[in-house]
Amino acid sequence: MDWLTASAAEQGRAIMAGLLDPVDQTQAYLAAIEANPYAKRIFARVTPDRAKAEAIAAHDRAKAEMRRSLLDGVAISWKDNIDSARIATEGGSRLLKGRKPAHDAVTLANATATGTVCLGKTHLTELAFSGLGLNPMTATPPNALDAGLAPGGSSSGSAVSVALGLAAATIGSDTGGSIRVPSAWNGLVGFKPSHGATSGTGVVPLCRKFDVVGPLARTVEDCALLFAALRGDRPVDLTEVSANGLRLMVLEGVPFDDAQEGPVSAFEDAVTRLAAAGAVISRASPDCVARAMALSPLLFAPEAYGIWRDQIEAAPEVMHPPILERFRGGAEVSAPDYVSAWEALVRLRQEWHALVAGYDAVILPTVAILPPDVERLNSDHDYFVTSNLLTLRNTRIGNLLDLPSATIPTGQPGCGFMAMGATGDDRRLLRVATAIEAALG
Amino acid sequence: MDWLTASAAEQGRAIMAGLLDPVDQTQAYLAAIEANPYAKRIFARVTPDRAKAEAIAAHDRAKAEMRRSLLDGVAISWKDNIDSARIATEGGSRLLKGRKPAHDAVTLANATATGTVCLGKTHLTELAFSGLGLNPMTATPPNALDAGLAPGGSSSGSAVSVALGLAAATIGSDTGGSIRVPSAWNGLVGFKPSHGATSGTGVVPLCRKFDVVGPLARTVEDCALLFAALRGDRPVDLTEVSANGLRLMVLEGVPFDDAQEGPVSAFEDAVTRLAAAGAVISRASPDCVARAMALSPLLFAPEAYGIWRDQIEAAPEVMHPPILERFRGGAEVSAPDYVSAWEALVRLRQEWHALVAGYDAVILPTVAILPPDVERLNSDHDYFVTSNLLTLRNTRIGNLLDLPSATIPTGQPGCGFMAMGATGDDRRLLRVATAIEAALG
Repeated sequence: MDWLTASAAEQGRAIMAGLLDPVDQTQAYLAAIEANPYAKRIFARVTPDRAKAEAIAAHDRAKAEMRRSLLDGVAISWKDNIDSARIATEGGSRLLKGRKPAHDAVTLANATATGTVCLGKTHLTELAFSGLGLNPMTATPPNALDAGLAPGGSSSGSAVSVALGLAAATIGSDTGGSIRVPSAWNGLVGFKPSHGATSGTGVVPLCRKFDVVGPLARTVEDCALLFAALRGDRPVDLTEVSANGLRLMVLEGVPFDDAQEGPVSAFEDAVTRLAAAGAVISRASPDCVARAMALSPLLFAPEAYGIWRDQIEAAPEVMHPPILERFRGGAEVSAPDYVSAWEALVRLRQEWHALVAGYDAVILPTVAILPPDVERLNSDHDYFVTSNLLTLRNTRIGNLLDLPSATIPTGQPGCGFMAMGATGDDRRLLRVATAIEAALG
Repeated sequence: MDWLTASAAEQGRAIMAGLLDPVDQTQAYLAAIEANPYAKRIFARVTPDRAKAEAIAAHDRAKAEMRRSLLDGVAISWKDNIDSARIATEGGSRLLKGRKPAHDAVTLANATATGTVCLGKTHLTELAFSGLGLNPMTATPPNALDAGLAPGGSSSGSAVSVALGLAAATIGSDTGGSIRVPSAWNGLVGFKPSHGATSGTGVVPLCRKFDVVGPLARTVEDCALLFAALRGDRPVDLTEVSANGLRLMVLEGVPFDDAQEGPVSAFEDAVTRLAAAGAVISRASPDCVARAMALSPLLFAPEAYGIWRDQIEAAPEVMHPPILERFRGGAEVSAPDYVSAWEALVRLRQEWHALVAGYDAVILPTVAILPPDVERLNSDHDYFVTSNLLTLRNTRIGNLLDLPSATIPTGQPGCGFMAMGATGDDRRLLRVATAIEAALG
């Protein structure tokens, strides 16, 4: 068996059974990274010293039968906007060149305490502010399906590192879709928790009111295990789940506007399989979704620009121009408009929950389009802007309404199936996602 | 003994001992309100039906020796921006005329569950947005010391209701000083909790990021009991406290600029008595205070205007002009300025805590000036504006830095002594305030 592309849970079980040694496996990943021609476009920096030390400690715990969790000794990568102690964390931006945090982010410290091994830090779009995954200022990872296509972002290097067998799983962050888009475009499962379910301490901020750390992996089980590790919590029980009887609401309307046929037919085919497995499918298009989406320009860029303005305007020339433009798009919004948009959004969240209370999950295509061509994105500014907005549109619904959201592969390359749960009920959504994954598998 | 002016705790102990009947006492308060010539300027509405029903229930519990707390059966008043179920809650504004919430605010529900009796709802400045206590659109309560002076606000009617013996204690809210200013100017103790220590659910918002509900009463003990009641929590133990050895830091600088001699000498006299009682007094003026104060215009009015703009601009003519002007003062602030001011404030809070970690409390005059003359405030717009800002300046430090803060009478009429603790350590601050109160008493 090629353990490099096994799921994190399978690797953990193999370590538990004595079939796999954490030191060997970490060395194997480091060697695979070393040998991969794209490695420098995927990893901002590899951390072999840290990885080896953590793998040796995990090895010793395994020998002593003192493993701390199923993932003890499993090697994963981390998006480079999550602080690593005394190791540069640059957030995909030359604005943060050479920045070395004193402490691990709380999520990294928690996961390390449960035994995960940190292989290194992965590239991302600049300050995590684009869904396409392009970053000419640092590096653009290749899409795992086709190196000429956009990898998806902003957790681009994270997703590709797992898809190419350079890490067992990875940790990213999501503000408008940054975990789920690259997961969908690289054939992975991605899980965006409810806001605040994982700590934001030690994460380079984009929009604090939306930013959330979460996993990208090969399976829902891996995501559930990593979600628990990030929190320092016990994993949710994923046994005895079934699609039979699941009440699923297809979110019609907004998510299908201007959508490409590929992602839509892959989604509808998945819905058909779920119905065949006994899921009860309803369809609705509550208008609170469009009203929430309409608030986006008042919420994201103004906060991001408020946080970064001083640093950005001191050196705008080091930034990727379309990202700079996105930040500056928040400059002219007034504070009362920003505050009243937040007041309106809170009311829309209440309205949403009253509407969907009877469903186990709301489902939709993760991304409305397939990964676009990188060369065209780089040469056609308007295409970049419209592609970026359309790429993030469906995922952003879960950020605006603060819903735990998982993307699951449909079986069609680059096409994800997204399930959204109720705010704060992340564990239930992971159980529902497990059932969906099994029905689609 | 005149139980009407006894502290809430004394009344509670008298009920426990069978010396006072909750029904008699509630009737006595209702009669005192009925007989008071200023009552309509203090109470927006009296709630005799609710009060009698709650008093009867408390009476029955006392007879059955099933009292729920020391304050079970004690009658208090509530600021009219705290929701009362099916009883109008109008926030001191004609914008909310006739508004009847379906539910009690969480704080009112919690306190009622511990047995307090709700006598009625008290006047406040319009939407709680002024520290002077004037409200020509509804009513301006008389200062309890001199009816021609400003009562202080925004919890104006609340403070005066207790000071004139029309309620055992009262519940107000504080965004920039609205509990502590009227407490100081009417000879009461007032306690502003850390933000979020009491629920904001069911409170008419002014600035959600600063608004907090808390008590005004005759003693620190009453405030501690009511703080617990608002939270549905157990009261802090206030025994074995002493000023001897207390490490107190006088906050020099900002709080004394343009301060009147009366409040300053009352404060310094209190400091002398505390030193005589064994307190260790230091003096410092960390510059983070002035930097936090400088952020105020970017934080308060923009949020308040963002929340209320639509309702205000639909009927600006029903508002008190200087309050309308204060709201509109937030209109031109940009969202990035608002966000970056919050980022800066969070850093200043960290800086503050590092500086004062070695002190039990930071102390300062509650208000820099004595209550101004109401007629002059009403006839001189500039005097209103400068007085309002100076009135709220010292208290606002505790809101900006999010410090639990208590004002304690100095013994000089209208002059309060303020102690500020560490964020979230409200119980410790209440113990420190108890020691200060005893030393000054």
